Amino acid sequence: MADAAESKGPSKSALKKAEKQAKMAADKAAKVAKQAALPVQTKKADNIIGITVSKSDDFPQWYQEVVLKAQMIDYYNEISGFYILRPSAMYVWGVIRNWFQDRIEAMGVEETSFPMFLSQTSFEKEKDHVDGFAPELAWVTKAGDKDLEVPVAVRPTSEAVMYPYYSKWIRTHRDLPFRLNQWNNVVRWEAKQTTPFLRAREFLWQEGHTAHLTEELAGKEVLEILELYARVYEELLAVPVVRGRKTENEKFAGGYYTTTVEGYIPSNGRGIQGATSHCLGQNFSKMFDIKVEDPDEKGKHINVWQNSWGLSTRVIGVMIMIHGDDKGLVLPPRIAKIQTVLIPLGITKNTTAEEKANLEKRLEEIRQTLLKAGVRVEADLREGYTPPWKFNDWELKGVPLRIEFGPKDSAKNVVSWARRDTGEKGTFAIDEVATKVPELLETIQKDLYNKAEKAYREHRLKITNWDEVVPALDAKNVVIIPFCLDGQCEDRIKELTAGKPEEGTDANGAPKAPTMGMKSLCIPFEQPEGLVPGETKCLNPECNRKAEKWCMFGRSY
Amino acid sequence: MADAAESKGPSKSALKKAEKQAKMAADKAAKVAKQAALPVQTKKADNIIGITVSKSDDFPQWYQEVVLKAQMIDYYNEISGFYILRPSAMYVWGVIRNWFQDRIEAMGVEETSFPMFLSQTSFEKEKDHVDGFAPELAWVTKAGDKDLEVPVAVRPTSEAVMYPYYSKWIRTHRDLPFRLNQWNNVVRWEAKQTTPFLRAREFLWQEGHTAHLTEELAGKEVLEILELYARVYEELLAVPVVRGRKTENEKFAGGYYTTTVEGYIPSNGRGIQGATSHCLGQNFSKMFDIKVEDPDEKGKHINVWQNSWGLSTRVIGVMIMIHGDDKGLVLPPRIAKIQTVLIPLGITKNTTAEEKANLEKRLEEIRQTLLKAGVRVEADLREGYTPPWKFNDWELKGVPLRIEFGPKDSAKNVVSWARRDTGEKGTFAIDEVATKVPELLETIQKDLYNKAEKAYREHRLKITNWDEVVPALDAKNVVIIPFCLDGQCEDRIKELTAGKPEEGTDANGAPKAPTMGMKSLCIPFEQPEGLVPGETKCLNPECNRKAEKWCMFGRSY
Repeated sequence: MADAAESKGPSKSALKKAEKQAKMAADKAAKVAKQAALPVQTKKADNIIGITVSKSDDFPQWYQEVVLKAQMIDYYNEISGFYILRPSAMYVWGVIRNWFQDRIEAMGVEETSFPMFLSQTSFEKEKDHVDGFAPELAWVTKAGDKDLEVPVAVRPTSEAVMYPYYSKWIRTHRDLPFRLNQWNNVVRWEAKQTTPFLRAREFLWQEGHTAHLTEELAGKEVLEILELYARVYEELLAVPVVRGRKTENEKFAGGYYTTTVEGYIPSNGRGIQGATSHCLGQNFSKMFDIKVEDPDEKGKHINVWQNSWGLSTRVIGVMIMIHGDDKGLVLPPRIAKIQTVLIPLGITKNTTAEEKANLEKRLEEIRQTLLKAGVRVEADLREGYTPPWKFNDWELKGVPLRIEFGPKDSAKNVVSWARRDTGEKGTFAIDEVATKVPELLETIQKDLYNKAEKAYREHRLKITNWDEVVPALDAKNVVIIPFCLDGQCEDRIKELTAGKPEEGTDANGAPKAPTMGMKSLCIPFEQPEGLVPGETKCLNPECNRKAEKWCMFGRSY
Repeated sequence: MADAAESKGPSKSALKKAEKQAKMAADKAAKVAKQAALPVQTKKADNIIGITVSKSDDFPQWYQEVVLKAQMIDYYNEISGFYILRPSAMYVWGVIRNWFQDRIEAMGVEETSFPMFLSQTSFEKEKDHVDGFAPELAWVTKAGDKDLEVPVAVRPTSEAVMYPYYSKWIRTHRDLPFRLNQWNNVVRWEAKQTTPFLRAREFLWQEGHTAHLTEELAGKEVLEILELYARVYEELLAVPVVRGRKTENEKFAGGYYTTTVEGYIPSNGRGIQGATSHCLGQNFSKMFDIKVEDPDEKGKHINVWQNSWGLSTRVIGVMIMIHGDDKGLVLPPRIAKIQTVLIPLGITKNTTAEEKANLEKRLEEIRQTLLKAGVRVEADLREGYTPPWKFNDWELKGVPLRIEFGPKDSAKNVVSWARRDTGEKGTFAIDEVATKVPELLETIQKDLYNKAEKAYREHRLKITNWDEVVPALDAKNVVIIPFCLDGQCEDRIKELTAGKPEEGTDANGAPKAPTMGMKSLCIPFEQPEGLVPGETKCLNPECNRKAEKWCMFGRSY
């Protein structure tokens, strides 16, 4: 269940099966994190502007430094596994929230707010669901100084909170489709190593819960929502994803089937679950007694078909991991709180007050022009910092475009610009900034996506020879292989691809951890050519079954 | 502390002092609520469309029926004191949220998200703050099946969660003003009777937390925010409020001073705290070590001046209580999810399919015209319901304007309309709906406000004779009296105005509860004439002090 934690839920069989592997990975990660955390959490290192390690040399430490120093999060030292989302992160979440909210509203999804606490009774109605979530529940047992008669749990997801009311509210087929969504916080008290954005004990998300008359109608919505999730990644965050269906092993606890968008982190070659849209089938509607009279047959009752779907703040972490570089964060323009920063140049000891005022006046005119053009722009007029220091500061924070403006530019009626993503530089005539800057921002947005898309495409290898699998993983690829879809075979594939502990010690002096086995990421909707039904074998050399589908596997979060 | 529960926090001395009175009120309320809850929570009564009691006869039951039957909330039966906010309530909250968010963003307030859990250590730093909130904390003591080493509490408000980080993040006076806001949920596990929206164990709110260099700058913001709160009530919810300052007894636990907007419920003559904006002074900044170097004196450090301010979903309850009537909810147009409902008339057994289709086609044209004019409009084409049934249904749900359209209207090229608030009826030429409907909606908005404002103004009595106080309260007024501002005097006023238990039993056969004493609501910023400093006596006959201010007192929530 390594990658399910901050998405819609732990997969069905995940808890038992991934334990061993997760433990090993966690031990290693803990070690690395401990080392990494030391320099960045002390006041001294906070003062070091810029990232102290290279993204390619030590990816985990690089990530921790970036999220902290770019002020996306802070660690909540009071309670481990919790993080503070700072304004630049909340801005990204706000853009996503507004974008998604507009689109589900247009679909007819209404907003609701259910209590954050769950009673034991409701929770225990769906068995697989309980098995999936029980180990991570936070229990409130006391209020003030009194013990509660019946302890209550903080929601890890709201199926069991909401569905008793769906039973009450849905009376006739005319109430269908019935669609509610809530934006809230959930708690999953994980024992495993936590990571900012990707795996936190509390996170923000939206959870949609809908009911439909037929499987077909439910299924249609599952895909509509999945497409919105894909667009959040692709259009807002400039992150490519693969759309597909989860295997039985990896589907939502208690659900019927799970669809997913899967991302890829080039730095370590790992897959990462992006967001999931589940068809719950009639499992929950039977347990919670949610039914309507069949419109075609009086007296006959039909249990409704339900969906649930969720997108969490995890998306921000994926975006950071993919676009960031050794200078820090790189934000796609569409989700950047500040898209362009204006920095005055050439102010020296010899500059007169009048010259300085003139330069700042023209800078302010440029700022106003850009604001009117819809650009989110700020001027950095801080005293006591040199332009290079300011450049570093805004690069660290990921601002997509820097505009510099000094006396020479002023004389030529131009501004100089520098792209955060490529470092490319150039000039625009001042008269043209209102059109050129928005164009350039769109170019940056597209280029970021294209670069990430190319990296993903080139590292998603279609493999038909088992011996090539582990070398492909070691070369930071995910693989697409012919697969029988059997759950035990899937488990065995994980074991077969896990490495033995290597000899020697790692950079921190700890024994080297074994490499992680690969798990199934999804069965891509876009299936490659070449799988002959009833003929092509499952790639697992120990398996005698025929392959049903091409399935994407990889080491993963 | 009766009225503080869902606002920014319990008042300083509230816990001990209000206990007795709250207990009596709660016992009575519990009795009424129990009776009231029975008919509306059974399936049978759910089917009764419309409210079964009159607002003037039994206000508590009326309120419970309205919020349930108009589908603003549902009771969360699994855990007492919690409520489900349904889409029509969340829509109101969404409008308020967007309106307020836009305005604080323009002020430079940024969005953040802190963890929902609080450690004991942070919490205990400010003593009055602890005293105020400790009795209502929900404690998480277990995760999965393991006991936590250190229990954590769910935030009742976030001062103690956030301020350790303010100490870390605020380094220089250039970081000031430092302003963060979060929209979230908080938990106050009250022992007292809960009421939908007004007092719930969990509620939604925004909490702003800011830091400033000087008392003056902090104080300026306190009032700016208070004015936004007043405008939420007045401009969006059509609810008049009185702006003022809380007495020492009623201020925020641990704060310096509290400003407030105070509402009034005509049906029972009670005051209700609307929202509060606090100056925390330097109390918290000293405890949490939040300081900057004095810009005017090198080496000298200044503890920052802090504010916190909050507006909760309580506002929705106040709006419902004020505008609702015996037919159900009455929503002000600006916050109504559906502002206008279109209902086809005159479709009978004799109507041909063609006639019906024609009518519905014209209705759809009207709907499109209104949508383009920016009106939130829906057509009710449900089969199997009579127009009168539909009228009742939409009246119950509070839709501000109904438009009826039948063959006669069609022949005359008019639509017929009926106002929800006054019942007034009329017609518009179809050509004019795009201008007339928005105008009428604005008229309804203004009329609702004016009606409520008149009721509040006429029941806010300036009183200078002690003997008139209790009769004024009994006649559903709040009173403005000369007051010395002394805390003990304030307590005594509460005792002196509380009635003795009456003889006989109430409608439910229970012994009659004593009438509630009055408490201070606020010291209005707009002070009436006639108080002579050093001369006018405090109105409490047992008090020998001079009056400092006119103070508004009343029975209250």
